[in-house]
Amino acid sequence: MANKERIAGVLAPVVTPFTKEYAPDAGRFARHCKWLLKSGCAGLAVFGTNSEANSMSVAEKLALLEALVAAGVPPAKLMPGTGHCALSDSIEMTRAAVRLGCAGVLMLPPFYYKGVSDEGLYRSFAEVIERVGDERLRLYLYHIPPVSQVPITLALIGRLLSKYPGIVAGVKDSSGDWQNTKAMLDQFAKEGFDVFAGSEVFLLENMRNGGKGCITATGNINPGPIDQLFRNWRSPDADRQQAAITATRKIVQKQPMIPALKAAIAHFGNDPQWKTCRPPLVELDSAQEESLIGELKASGFSMPGLG
Amino acid sequence: MANKERIAGVLAPVVTPFTKEYAPDAGRFARHCKWLLKSGCAGLAVFGTNSEANSMSVAEKLALLEALVAAGVPPAKLMPGTGHCALSDSIEMTRAAVRLGCAGVLMLPPFYYKGVSDEGLYRSFAEVIERVGDERLRLYLYHIPPVSQVPITLALIGRLLSKYPGIVAGVKDSSGDWQNTKAMLDQFAKEGFDVFAGSEVFLLENMRNGGKGCITATGNINPGPIDQLFRNWRSPDADRQQAAITATRKIVQKQPMIPALKAAIAHFGNDPQWKTCRPPLVELDSAQEESLIGELKASGFSMPGLG
Repeated sequence: MANKERIAGVLAPVVTPFTKEYAPDAGRFARHCKWLLKSGCAGLAVFGTNSEANSMSVAEKLALLEALVAAGVPPAKLMPGTGHCALSDSIEMTRAAVRLGCAGVLMLPPFYYKGVSDEGLYRSFAEVIERVGDERLRLYLYHIPPVSQVPITLALIGRLLSKYPGIVAGVKDSSGDWQNTKAMLDQFAKEGFDVFAGSEVFLLENMRNGGKGCITATGNINPGPIDQLFRNWRSPDADRQQAAITATRKIVQKQPMIPALKAAIAHFGNDPQWKTCRPPLVELDSAQEESLIGELKASGFSMPGLG
Repeated sequence: MANKERIAGVLAPVVTPFTKEYAPDAGRFARHCKWLLKSGCAGLAVFGTNSEANSMSVAEKLALLEALVAAGVPPAKLMPGTGHCALSDSIEMTRAAVRLGCAGVLMLPPFYYKGVSDEGLYRSFAEVIERVGDERLRLYLYHIPPVSQVPITLALIGRLLSKYPGIVAGVKDSSGDWQNTKAMLDQFAKEGFDVFAGSEVFLLENMRNGGKGCITATGNINPGPIDQLFRNWRSPDADRQQAAITATRKIVQKQPMIPALKAAIAHFGNDPQWKTCRPPLVELDSAQEESLIGELKASGFSMPGLG
């Protein structure tokens, strides 16, 4: 298993649909996952930041994960988020993901305490790896300091990688700082450490420097064109393709990202229930929604085959 | 039940002991809780920031809470922390606390997403109150922006208090900003909103302005003298007492607070296992520990009856 093929390409941190009563909606979730895989996503980073994962309990997420697999979504395409504040929660989710045969897990550091030491973060990740104790585990570190406020430093990556080669498989860098992504590539990519940009804005640069793709919010609505650039990054047309997908992202990120993605799926899939966010997030107001949908339509954006 | 007596005085956010394997240790926990109640604490804010509460799963916390009650700790003295990132976790813990007869719950806002709106936070608290649906609930809001990064604004308090009077019972203000505590007192104390300072450093000021006490880290090791000031705040000796407890706190907070509290309990209770912190926190190094214990001893500090 140590040499099993790893995911490369475009992954969506899949947004999670909720009912009017704020319950996770497994049916809509599985349908969206299948649309994503059909439309260009190489994998599904379910339970990421854009999934409102931390707004759900471990039990709710395990039920969704099992429902996905039962609905026929291949576990080899799944990279669920399994990092929690509580060590015990991270162990439980990671163990379940490995048991189900997921390609990997994307793990936030524990994020309640701020200013924690690399030693403490090392112990957190190491405890999960040791307690799960399964050679099939592929752990991708999730660096997203603007939200978690707890960074994953280059020194921490180096220490984990030298202790757990093959298990520590890569990173999603959502710092928004290309120099940081570049440093991760320069220092670790040759050791089989797979670097995913946290936004398609950096996809071309990431590929040109030895990266493996991107795990990006807008992968939820624009997977085809992003995947096209992933496949064609060496082509003369690559810069034009990069500019086009960046332009789409810029429209979306004028609004709060998660409700904007949900509003787009609701509109283009003709399914208004998709708009619901679980507190503390709130749906777009009507002006925000009109602006988003209007600009997307004007740009020629579409979601072929949705709904 | 609407007029049941509320807790006032000194509460400790009780530190949580772990075994060498990082498992919560219910026996040591109950013993420490009993020592605190015997030594000056009016109540126990178990599962607070200083309790490493967010490093534990809901199941682990429920087991500890049930063990405490089974060990004879009166639920009327308990104000467990029940706020989580996940709405469903907050509902589950709050429901359990009410069912067990706890005096109240101390609730963090959901803290993963940053920059969330007051509307989203209002929905979070309101959903918990509505789903628990029990008139016995007494909800204390937990404002600790240095750690949670998500504040509880005066506007949010006002909105919750007018919708849920009697249920929304007060606040712990751990902003460290006395002007904010003062504003909470000025705007809401007369409506039966109980303001607890988040540190004994502000205890005297809080009492002089209509507050109800403090919920403070160092309540774990210095409950007697802090309680004495709470009882004697109108006395001519109050300023001297305030200076003395502030001096003790200043010694402790030269070190990282949580491992320092644990090191003090380990030393003065002659029980080294208390030093263990769950990752991502780490215990003090030997130099930090020597410095802490040396300074505490030199100041005349003691923990009578411990161990």
